[in-house]
Amino acid sequence: MNKAILIVQCPDQQGIVAAVSDFLYQNGGNILEVDQYVDQEAKRFFMRASWDLDSFSLKKEEISNRFSQEVAKEFEMDFTLHFNQPKTRMAIFVSKQSHCLFDILSRHHSGQLEVEIPLVISNHDHLRDVVEAFNIPFHHIPVSRETKAHAESEQLRLLEEANVDFVVLARYMQIVSPDFISHFPDRIINIHHSFLPAFVGAKPYHAAFERGVKIIGATAHYVTEELDAGPIIEQEVARVRHHNNVADLVQIGQDVEKVVLSRAIKSHLDRKVTVFKNRTIIFY
Amino acid sequence: MNKAILIVQCPDQQGIVAAVSDFLYQNGGNILEVDQYVDQEAKRFFMRASWDLDSFSLKKEEISNRFSQEVAKEFEMDFTLHFNQPKTRMAIFVSKQSHCLFDILSRHHSGQLEVEIPLVISNHDHLRDVVEAFNIPFHHIPVSRETKAHAESEQLRLLEEANVDFVVLARYMQIVSPDFISHFPDRIINIHHSFLPAFVGAKPYHAAFERGVKIIGATAHYVTEELDAGPIIEQEVARVRHHNNVADLVQIGQDVEKVVLSRAIKSHLDRKVTVFKNRTIIFY
Amino acid sequence: MNKAILIVQCPDQQGIVAAVSDFLYQNGGNILEVDQYVDQEAKRFFMRASWDLDSFSLKKEEISNRFSQEVAKEFEMDFTLHFNQPKTRMAIFVSKQSHCLFDILSRHHSGQLEVEIPLVISNHDHLRDVVEAFNIPFHHIPVSRETKAHAESEQLRLLEEANVDFVVLARYMQIVSPDFISHFPDRIINIHHSFLPAFVGAKPYHAAFERGVKIIGATAHYVTEELDAGPIIEQEVARVRHHNNVADLVQIGQDVEKVVLSRAIKSHLDRKVTVFKNRTIIFY
Amino acid sequence: MNKAILIVQCPDQQGIVAAVSDFLYQNGGNILEVDQYVDQEAKRFFMRASWDLDSFSLKKEEISNRFSQEVAKEFEMDFTLHFNQPKTRMAIFVSKQSHCLFDILSRHHSGQLEVEIPLVISNHDHLRDVVEAFNIPFHHIPVSRETKAHAESEQLRLLEEANVDFVVLARYMQIVSPDFISHFPDRIINIHHSFLPAFVGAKPYHAAFERGVKIIGATAHYVTEELDAGPIIEQEVARVRHHNNVADLVQIGQDVEKVVLSRAIKSHLDRKVTVFKNRTIIFY
Repeated sequence: MNKAILIVQCPDQQGIVAAVSDFLYQNGGNILEVDQYVDQEAKRFFMRASWDLDSFSLKKEEISNRFSQEVAKEFEMDFTLHFNQPKTRMAIFVSKQSHCLFDILSRHHSGQLEVEIPLVISNHDHLRDVVEAFNIPFHHIPVSRETKAHAESEQLRLLEEANVDFVVLARYMQIVSPDFISHFPDRIINIHHSFLPAFVGAKPYHAAFERGVKIIGATAHYVTEELDAGPIIEQEVARVRHHNNVADLVQIGQDVEKVVLSRAIKSHLDRKVTVFKNRTIIFY
Repeated sequence: MNKAILIVQCPDQQGIVAAVSDFLYQNGGNILEVDQYVDQEAKRFFMRASWDLDSFSLKKEEISNRFSQEVAKEFEMDFTLHFNQPKTRMAIFVSKQSHCLFDILSRHHSGQLEVEIPLVISNHDHLRDVVEAFNIPFHHIPVSRETKAHAESEQLRLLEEANVDFVVLARYMQIVSPDFISHFPDRIINIHHSFLPAFVGAKPYHAAFERGVKIIGATAHYVTEELDAGPIIEQEVARVRHHNNVADLVQIGQDVEKVVLSRAIKSHLDRKVTVFKNRTIIFY
Repeated sequence: MNKAILIVQCPDQQGIVAAVSDFLYQNGGNILEVDQYVDQEAKRFFMRASWDLDSFSLKKEEISNRFSQEVAKEFEMDFTLHFNQPKTRMAIFVSKQSHCLFDILSRHHSGQLEVEIPLVISNHDHLRDVVEAFNIPFHHIPVSRETKAHAESEQLRLLEEANVDFVVLARYMQIVSPDFISHFPDRIINIHHSFLPAFVGAKPYHAAFERGVKIIGATAHYVTEELDAGPIIEQEVARVRHHNNVADLVQIGQDVEKVVLSRAIKSHLDRKVTVFKNRTIIFY
Repeated sequence: MNKAILIVQCPDQQGIVAAVSDFLYQNGGNILEVDQYVDQEAKRFFMRASWDLDSFSLKKEEISNRFSQEVAKEFEMDFTLHFNQPKTRMAIFVSKQSHCLFDILSRHHSGQLEVEIPLVISNHDHLRDVVEAFNIPFHHIPVSRETKAHAESEQLRLLEEANVDFVVLARYMQIVSPDFISHFPDRIINIHHSFLPAFVGAKPYHAAFERGVKIIGATAHYVTEELDAGPIIEQEVARVRHHNNVADLVQIGQDVEKVVLSRAIKSHLDRKVTVFKNRTIIFY
């Protein structure tokens, strides 16, 4: 199905749902989904609506302009408009660990993720074989303290060439620079292997073991300049026991990491995520 | 806050969201929540909207009529209209087990449940003391095979006298008759101590133990004529191990039962549940 | 059943299980449960064994001495010996919130918790009625900055009079002093309303909301001098969404708090918890 | 580490733990894990113990005989003895769906599963490329009603040639014959895509949708002659909502299936599963 998705946020007031739904109705739009949320404290309104483009009387190219004129201006809306065709293009960054990468590739292979994966970039060459077995180009760009700036410019060049929409750090294990982030605001998804805000930074499973927690977790979030502090998209947990050592936590955690990251990618692809004040609204 | 809640279902077509939201907007309604769902297979549309009554230009008494004339007829809608004031009135039926009853009374006591509880009815006298400690009238109506019809008519008389809106069977352990059910269609909530449709009927924990399941559950559902087959409102589960005997399952299960039942009551009270084809739609 | 429970820890070496189980066997002990754990890094051995006292040839009074002579000395064991009769005596401290208290009283009432509750102590008088409805003495001891030392000495006096074995802080909302703690080492259980170590200290639900987490939690731990840093006994979590405000988190969290606290109490009562290096071993 | 694992079951009586642990101690065995369970109703004792072989004074070949003579006979024990070296050999049967297969191969690739996978057998040729990319032989053996007996004999020949210890049906979608099962008693693991005993047989996600359940699940079990009725090894669940159609349930369920199956394989490989009266004991 040819689908349009509209994400809106604006100061809360009466008549917003009516105005948006009337705009869609007047142009023949068959609403597929609508979800709205009001942040009562901030007095801010958020809405996501999707509709079938086939019966819609406006051309794709003119929707944004018309909506802006006829609805958005009056309500001082920030809005973004998305289409499910052509498919979104996603780059994957990995290091040596394969569990998140394989999980994504496996879902892509089975048709579960509606996305193009034009390339995988890694600072190590370890996972080349499997990536290429899935017929996806693999780029090995080593990163050291000295070469980091140069490596990032090479990465950015590849991402631009491949016309990439967003980036997934699938246990990439490198901190990306503010400059890099600025090219993909709210469009770099990282998986952190702890239940944030617990255990920010390196070696969270060691820290979890030391603290003696009974449940570990993983967190998918958009990358911002502050480490592990960006808007949280998804979290999940798993129960552990005293007899689980650090190596056990790593293994149990991997199952959590991969499912959390895949859910976050899915929500992002379905345009169900919007950000306000470093928090995410996840539409249904 | 003085709130109105509208639940709608009708054949799916374009313009429904626009029509409903426009009706609310034209009458000064500040939409608080709106959630909609389309059953694509049945081509049926469902919607729940709530709005602030204080700024609404229609009187409570005229809303139903006006909505019927101006919107519902055109779209062949079935709809119900609810208000959060005055509070809904709930009767609780119990037998000897106290865990679900105490959980409900405790939530009511702390203000978590916006409901009046004018009475508790039981076929045993065991729980009178605690119920009365919470200042709620307790009625002991013994039930035997011979007296069942008479007991039910006595129950119905009490429910009518107390102007009860809906009934919660909090581990009542008695099968209620089709006649009794017909007085409260989709308004009797039962908690069944299994993960339905597994282990229908009596002694589900024994059956779960025999089958060697690794997870047990509980199910809150509306009561219909067929035993344990009514529309499911909520389910939850808990993990068990081989070393848990039937008595352990009973105890672990009680924690699940009470939380499931309380969530179902909350959803029902918030008018977030509607039924179609023996399945529930649970709005957000 | 008349049951003895032995908890042992010592440097790891060969023959410990054999020595303990042989001691029990030679004295006619029918082993009911045995669970052991070796901390491979610390080279430390932990074991819990329980057996039926009725067929045991040693008197309760002499077991400890005989075990010490015949087994513990050789293996440099720290051990504790417990009996399920007479019942352990537990004091509950509360403030104004009732959800954890009611949950404990309800389990006690239904026979789920094998414990005596000789008293409830509170810094407010709010919950007197319900506590007394369960026939448990309620002591109101107001606490202010100025009267805190005096209040604690009064609390300690009551606990001593009542011959209390351990204390449960069921959302007591007051920080207890190091002196108070020293009277009950690893015998004061607190429920903290966050997923520790995230959100230590006051107002964790506010902090969780601000951070935009997708899952909240609660943690039961033994109280030590450092705030919210004692050995964790149990944790549990619940999923939340962007549309849940702080008040919602409080309500969702209460269901988690009460189940976590009750599980921790159960584990403590069953003598299934032992502490090593600020972490708990939870035996099966 | 060179490890031996002993699984024992016998009528319950005093002295079993002492006898087994003494046997190990006398022969220099450093016990790594010991877990025991008594089925109080059946008066049956179960135990799993593992120990380090390097310091053990008996040769691998003589342990079974010596244990039988010195311990097992007296207590009428059924026992099995396992070693972690050489690695267990596992065959995977698949059909067209890849999610469980990829998950297993990915865990194997990352070293998480200590197992040899000498072959994958499928009734379709769809997944050959990926299997071979992981350097595992792939055998396509078509199965129709007419050719089934012949196909099974071909499968059995391959399994024997490859010296396979156990078989995993990773969404194989074919019913295997009693004769086939008899070659691998309690050594064929199947993943069923429902929360058994709910929704036995074909199309469980359709049935779950029809019934309107709020939670779906998956079950890993040993295959026995009666369909989907064998001893359950592991179960897990996932929450669904009314707006999830059958295709959604399939997708959500796949994440559950793969994690359940992998956990069951891990438990089986670690020799932590034993069967009694169609129920499993899962040791720690």
